This record gives sequence, structure tokens and C-alpha cells, in this order.
Amino acid sequence: MTRIAIYPGSFDPVTRGHEDLVRRSLAFADRVIVAVATNLSKEPLFTLEERVKLLRTVFGEDERVEIDRFEGLLADFARERDARLVIRGLRAVSDFDYESQMALMNRQLYPELETVFLVPALHLTYLSSSLVREVARLGGDVSDLVPPAVEKALKRKFG
Amino acid sequence: MTRIAIYPGSFDPVTRGHEDLVRRSLAFADRVIVAVATNLSKEPLFTLEERVKLLRTVFGEDERVEIDRFEGLLADFARERDARLVIRGLRAVSDFDYESQMALMNRQLYPELETVFLVPALHLTYLSSSLVREVARLGGDVSDLVPPAVEKALKRKFG
Amino acid sequence: MTRIAIYPGSFDPVTRGHEDLVRRSLAFADRVIVAVATNLSKEPLFTLEERVKLLRTVFGEDERVEIDRFEGLLADFARERDARLVIRGLRAVSDFDYESQMALMNRQLYPELETVFLVPALHLTYLSSSLVREVARLGGDVSDLVPPAVEKALKRKFG
Amino acid sequence: MTRIAIYPGSFDPVTRGHEDLVRRSLAFADRVIVAVATNLSKEPLFTLEERVKLLRTVFGEDERVEIDRFEGLLADFARERDARLVIRGLRAVSDFDYESQMALMNRQLYPELETVFLVPALHLTYLSSSLVREVARLGGDVSDLVPPAVEKALKRKFG
Amino acid sequence: MTRIAIYPGSFDPVTRGHEDLVRRSLAFADRVIVAVATNLSKEPLFTLEERVKLLRTVFGEDERVEIDRFEGLLADFARERDARLVIRGLRAVSDFDYESQMALMNRQLYPELETVFLVPALHLTYLSSSLVREVARLGGDVSDLVPPAVEKALKRKFG
Amino acid sequence: MTRIAIYPGSFDPVTRGHEDLVRRSLAFADRVIVAVATNLSKEPLFTLEERVKLLRTVFGEDERVEIDRFEGLLADFARERDARLVIRGLRAVSDFDYESQMALMNRQLYPELETVFLVPALHLTYLSSSLVREVARLGGDVSDLVPPAVEKALKRKFG
Repeated sequence: MTRIAIYPGSFDPVTRGHEDLVRRSLAFADRVIVAVATNLSKEPLFTLEERVKLLRTVFGEDERVEIDRFEGLLADFARERDARLVIRGLRAVSDFDYESQMALMNRQLYPELETVFLVPALHLTYLSSSLVREVARLGGDVSDLVPPAVEKALKRKFG
Repeated sequence: MTRIAIYPGSFDPVTRGHEDLVRRSLAFADRVIVAVATNLSKEPLFTLEERVKLLRTVFGEDERVEIDRFEGLLADFARERDARLVIRGLRAVSDFDYESQMALMNRQLYPELETVFLVPALHLTYLSSSLVREVARLGGDVSDLVPPAVEKALKRKFG
Repeated sequence: MTRIAIYPGSFDPVTRGHEDLVRRSLAFADRVIVAVATNLSKEPLFTLEERVKLLRTVFGEDERVEIDRFEGLLADFARERDARLVIRGLRAVSDFDYESQMALMNRQLYPELETVFLVPALHLTYLSSSLVREVARLGGDVSDLVPPAVEKALKRKFG
Repeated sequence: MTRIAIYPGSFDPVTRGHEDLVRRSLAFADRVIVAVATNLSKEPLFTLEERVKLLRTVFGEDERVEIDRFEGLLADFARERDARLVIRGLRAVSDFDYESQMALMNRQLYPELETVFLVPALHLTYLSSSLVREVARLGGDVSDLVPPAVEKALKRKFG
Repeated sequence: MTRIAIYPGSFDPVTRGHEDLVRRSLAFADRVIVAVATNLSKEPLFTLEERVKLLRTVFGEDERVEIDRFEGLLADFARERDARLVIRGLRAVSDFDYESQMALMNRQLYPELETVFLVPALHLTYLSSSLVREVARLGGDVSDLVPPAVEKALKRKFG
Repeated sequence: MTRIAIYPGSFDPVTRGHEDLVRRSLAFADRVIVAVATNLSKEPLFTLEERVKLLRTVFGEDERVEIDRFEGLLADFARERDARLVIRGLRAVSDFDYESQMALMNRQLYPELETVFLVPALHLTYLSSSLVREVARLGGDVSDLVPPAVEKALKRKFG
């Protein structure tokens, strides 16, 4: 049985924290689908196409990682893609309430779907896409926070 | 590659919450080793032998589940047993700090060991071995909280 | 002395979680005023009139429950209505900080006003109006989450 | 209908924080039974008789407050005493997990029993019996923290 | 060595809670720079000039307190101003995750910059600029929450 | 004015985390008194004398750091030593409630005493004396967790 895991998010943009979680997920999943949400509540910095393209650049060489997009319910997408696992990172307590709420909701909508929480590498704990956007917007150095392709893309945005 | 997960605990006694987590772990692990800690900081209600025996009764028929005991560091035990995954349940925020501390410590001692957190079934969220012991000690009904064999064992203990 | 409790919220829309809390409040209040906030920081999905009407449909037959609307400070509204209790649900830790802040503020503005926190039914813990709107918007089944009248209203909204 | 609330605890010793919560409970309960737990996991500083006596001194003149003791399950005691409400103070987030776990457990054992959480007076937030014992043991001034009778009793204990 | 601390924020408007923290910071800092952020994610109620002017009115007579504005990264501003300390208040657990994330990020950008957390006066724990704006907007009395000059300014805004 | 800070604890034994906090405190304190508590609720692994001696070995060469012991209330000790600052590390949310409770209590007992919270180095976040004792007891490598003198002392203890 091939174990397929979905790692959903907005990836606006992908960070070293996301990279780390995908790599960790491969400890128990045969394939990880990085699923880019198309309907976000806020206007993203990068378009859907840009976000997907950056993810492809970052993960392109690993056959076990697939980049896809989804709209609608994550539970429906997981069912379609025959995935039984959802991957989420737990960075801080403030994540916990929302994340367990989502896990329980998804379980109700699709009982076979198990949400699996991982602790990111310690030096990436404080990292988030919104922090990266903020630092880059203010002209800070983000080379430790994002892959090189993303650093370039941020420089073009904020030039 | 066989994916082996360890589910460590004191299991004093095993509850329906533990049962639920083992079942969920089989969504991504080929084998789950339920690892009973032999050195506890407090005197347990059930002896090590009793705890192991109750676990065998509960999981005995599933070939994918093995009951073992360990002393010393969990990281050392995992290495010995060639396991790369540790299973932990996240019931509440108060679990989170301690659990992520342990996950980071174990990662330092054995970098390939990934700790995976699962959310228990909602109706088992409030359940813990210490609560079960307390309710049983006070004469309450624990039939919804533990497997039948454990209920019997608790009755013998508290007469 | 008639004990009057206020259950304030935006109720956009009313969910089974709100129903559950009102029912629980009647364990210690003679009357519960469901108080719909008219000035919200975000544009609601349902208009004030729609929200009030749905609440009337849900609670209409219970004489102990009254639907009202308020603008301005909750403390002023409570004083006007001669209410000494405010009802709030505590679903998760992340609710706690904000809710205790509001309780302390309201106590300063109206010292006789006591805020009373209740734990919702376990299977409704993960439920919120925003989650309901999100699931309905994405085409998911909300029949377990809201009363039938609300389910119909959501279908009309999202067609 | 007389609304009876139970306020359970070890009261070792009763503090101004307990006094505050009892007073607040009378906003919605006709009678409050202060229920002293007889079986504690740790050896108490004051004997059961001393704890009950101090409570009687503190609340003695209010006919709406009764001091009682209980052993066994709180749910059983509540049923016996025909009480439908349990009062608990929520001081801090770390209380929340344990308290909601107990509330859910008690609800399972006695579904009509509603646990009601109150926020203590702000200046009593940092107060607990264990802190009082610690400060008194180390010779600190506890006159702002406990009623006068308790202050005297602590002085006798620690001489 | 002169110890310079920065107290960053939007101060929209300055409250008695901010006053309290500045006063406390002078226990270990020779000078406190109150640094008003110029680029906010939301439209502020008071313009940058108004916020700076109110701060000057409140702290104007203390030579150890300076009002300044900054744009860009706090770490860059701290370096420019030769400051090694950042002051932050910790009111509640929900502050903690975000604040420690920012402290770690600033440490990465400027390793000599230490973030120092203080607990505000208890009666100011529930206080925030957004709560002040909300209460003032709804016509509530804010005289206990803000300095007199701010109270007047709020009255002019909300007339 | 010489700024004296107290860093209280049981230091059973001193870890690299404690070292890190003392070093950080010197950013705003002229002198740090590491104050070893003599009355602990649990039997320590190292005697008071051993704990003090290990601290002297670790900090001995820095004139700004003094090792002392205290019994009784921290507030009394601080007053005696003319210290106005207490240093505490904030590792995790679970620390926060207890720590802010202690800070408020100490403030009541000695209003000029300010508690200052620092975030430890990220790679030391998961570190505590109890974890060190546990790992050493089970035979794990603690060389990254404690200074060399402490490592030796632990080896002697656990042979």
C-alpha cells in the first residue's frame, strides 16, 4: 500500500520550515502532495502560479514530492487523491487550538483521514511565511529563512 | 521498508484512549511497538507484569502490534528496535510543552527518530490513566473508559 | 428574584454549539437573552435581520429564551435589561485570554455583572460560526453543525 | 426551584480567593455547598476538622452557604445533595486543561451536572492555598491573602 | 555604559499600561526610547503625528524617556540607536508565542539585542489600545485606562 | 547606581541554560547573584554544598557573578541584598502561569522588585535540570547540556 500524505498550506512563499516538514514526512509517507490552497482569505503576495512554481523549484528533484493545488474542502481533495494522512507542523501553543479544531473537523468530514503533527527543526520554530514577507518587505536578510529561489523572488517583489 | 513506530508510556492501566491511538498509528506504521516504561517516578498501581499482560489481552490478536518493555532512554530503545517513529497523543495544550520538549530531546539523542503527534477521538480527549485510576478508586463506573479486561482488573484491585 | 442572563454574540449564523450553551444556561438562569451584536468589525454573511430571524426560528418555542439586539457596550445593555449574568462558552485555551480580558473589562464597567463560562458538549467543541461558513461556502455538509433552518439559509446563500 | 451549587476543594486553608468565588456564586445560586474533599493525594497542612472549622468561621453567618465534606466521586456527592451546579475558579490557562477535563468527566458521570467557571477578582488571581502555605511557612505576611481566622491558624502552625 | 532600551509599539493610543511598562523599564535602563512604528498593517485611529504628540505629552517631563519613530526592521533601528534592550509586556499566554517568536527573530538579525519581558501592574493586565479604542467608540468611560490627554483626544475623535 | 539582579533557582545541577541566562542578564545588570534555594520541596540530587560548588566552578572567573544561598522568601533575600531585579527564563507557555504568579506575589511583598523574563538561546529551550538528571540517570550523553564540571559530577553520582 502506498501511503500518500497531503501537506496543505498557502505557501506564500515556501520557507525552509516547509522544506523541513516535507523531508520529515517522508519518514512515514511514500509520497507527499504539497497542496497549495487557491482560495485564501487574504490577498497573497505571490500569485497561485508563482507559489506553485517556487515549490516546483524547491522540491522538483524529489520524485516522492508532488506539487498540486486545491480549492474547496481539504477532506474532499484528500479523498480524490486517495490520501489518508494530512501533515501539519506544530510550532507553538497558539497553533494547537486551531490545528486540533481543523483535524477534528476533517475527521468528521472524512473519518479515514488522519492528521499527523510534527515538530519542526528547532532553529525553524520561529519561522512563518508571514514573518518572511514582513522581513523581506522591510529590507532584512532572509537567506537563512527561505531557499535561494524564494530569496530572489522576494527581491524582485520588493526590489 | 517496514515502518516501525514506538508508542511509549506507563500504561497504568491501558485505556480506550491508548487503544484508539494504536489503531490510528496503523494508518502510517507497519508495526507498532507498545513500549511499557519500567522505571516510573511514582509507584504504579499495576506491576510491570500486570500492565504488560493487560496490553497483551487488549492487542493480542493484531499481528501488527507488539508489546515490549524498556528501561533507559527511549532513544536507545528505538535505535535497538530499528524504529524511526515515536507516537504520542496530544490531548490538551498542557501536554504540548512537555511533549515537544521530549520530542526535541529525543531528536538530539537520535536524529533519525521522528515524533508524530495524533489527536485522539474526541470522546476520549478527557481520558487518562490517572483519571481512570481515580474514578475506579472512588467506585465510579469505568466501563466506557477502559477495555473489559482492565475493568475487571481494576475491580480486583479496589475490591 | 428572576435571574436574567445575556448570551452575547454575532450568531453569523447560530450553530448547534450556541443551542447547546443556551440550554445549559437554563440550569441556573430563569431567562436567557440571546443578544445579537449589531456592530461587527467584519461584514457578516447574514444581515442583522436574518441572524435575528434564524435565532427566533431556533429558540422560538421556549418562553425562557428571548432574542434581542444591542449596539454599544455590553455592560450598558446588561444594565438596561437588568441582567447580572453573561454567558460565554470556553472551547479552547485560545478563547481563554480574550474572554477573561472581556470579563474583567465588563466587571470594571458594571461590577454586579458576573461572566459565567461553560464547557460546550464535547462533540461541539470544534464548532464555530466561522467554521460553519467556511464549510458551507466550500460545499461541505453542515447538517450536523447547525439547525435545519440554518442549513437551508446557508444553501440559499451559497447556492 | 432552589438552585444548589457545590464548590469543591481541599481548602487547605480557605483563602480570600475562595471567599470571593463563593460570593460571586450567589449571583446565580440560591445555596452554595462548600465541599471539603476528605481524600487528598498529599498530606494536608490542616486536618479535615481544622479546614471545616476555618470555613465555618469564615462563612458562618451567611445562611446561603453550607460547609460539608465529601469522599468518593464529586458526581455522586452532587447527586445526593441534589445539586446541579459545580463552581470552579479559572485563574490561569494552566488551570483550564485540567478543569475542563474534570468538567467533562463529571458530565459523563452525571449529565445534569453543569460546571460553571468564574473569573476571580483581579487582585486575587495570583492567589492559591499552596502559595499561602509557602509564604506563611517562610514567615511572610499573609494578612491580605486570607481571612483573619486563617492568619491566626497559620501563625499557630508555623509559630 | 549607558543602557538604552527600546519600547516599540503602535501606541494607538498610549495607555496607562504603556506608562506602567516605561516606568518599570527604568529599573534597569538608563534611557527608554518609546519607538512608534510608522508602518502598521491596519489603518490607525490616530495619525503618526498625533500618536507621537500624545506620547510627548504623557512622558514629556522625564528626561530619561525619549519618543522616536521608526520604519523598517526594529533590529536595524536598535542598532542605529545603539540600544541593546527591547522592552515588551507579557499580559497573557496568547501574547507569549508571538512575542517569543519576535524575540528570536530579532536575536537572529542582531545577536546583541536582548528582549526583556515585564509583567504589567495587575489592574492593567486586561488593558490594550484596541480595547481602549473599542470602549471609547461605544461611548464608555476610559478615564481609568488612559492618561487625561488621551481621554480628551478620544473624545474629539468620537465626539 | 549599581544594578543588582538575583537569579534564583535550585540549580540541581546548573545547566548550559542557566549559564546562558546569566550571560544575557549581564546586558542590563551590573551584578548577578545566583541564589541557590536551600529549602526545596523535593530531595535534590546534589547537596546544597555540591550545587554551590558547581556554580562556583562554572561562574568563578567572572567578577560580576556571585553565588549565594537563601532560605525564606525571595523578596526578603532581595531586600537584604539590595537587589531590585529578579531574572527568570521563559522557556514555554507552561512556565508562564506559574512565573507570572510568582512575579506578582513578589511584587506584593516587595513593590520595588521587578521580575524580568528572558528567552533562552533557542537550542537550550528544551533544557531543564530535571531533564539533565533523567538523561544522566539513564546513561545518556549530557555533554551538550551541561558544563564539563557538571558532566563529571553526574558521572560520579550515577557511576
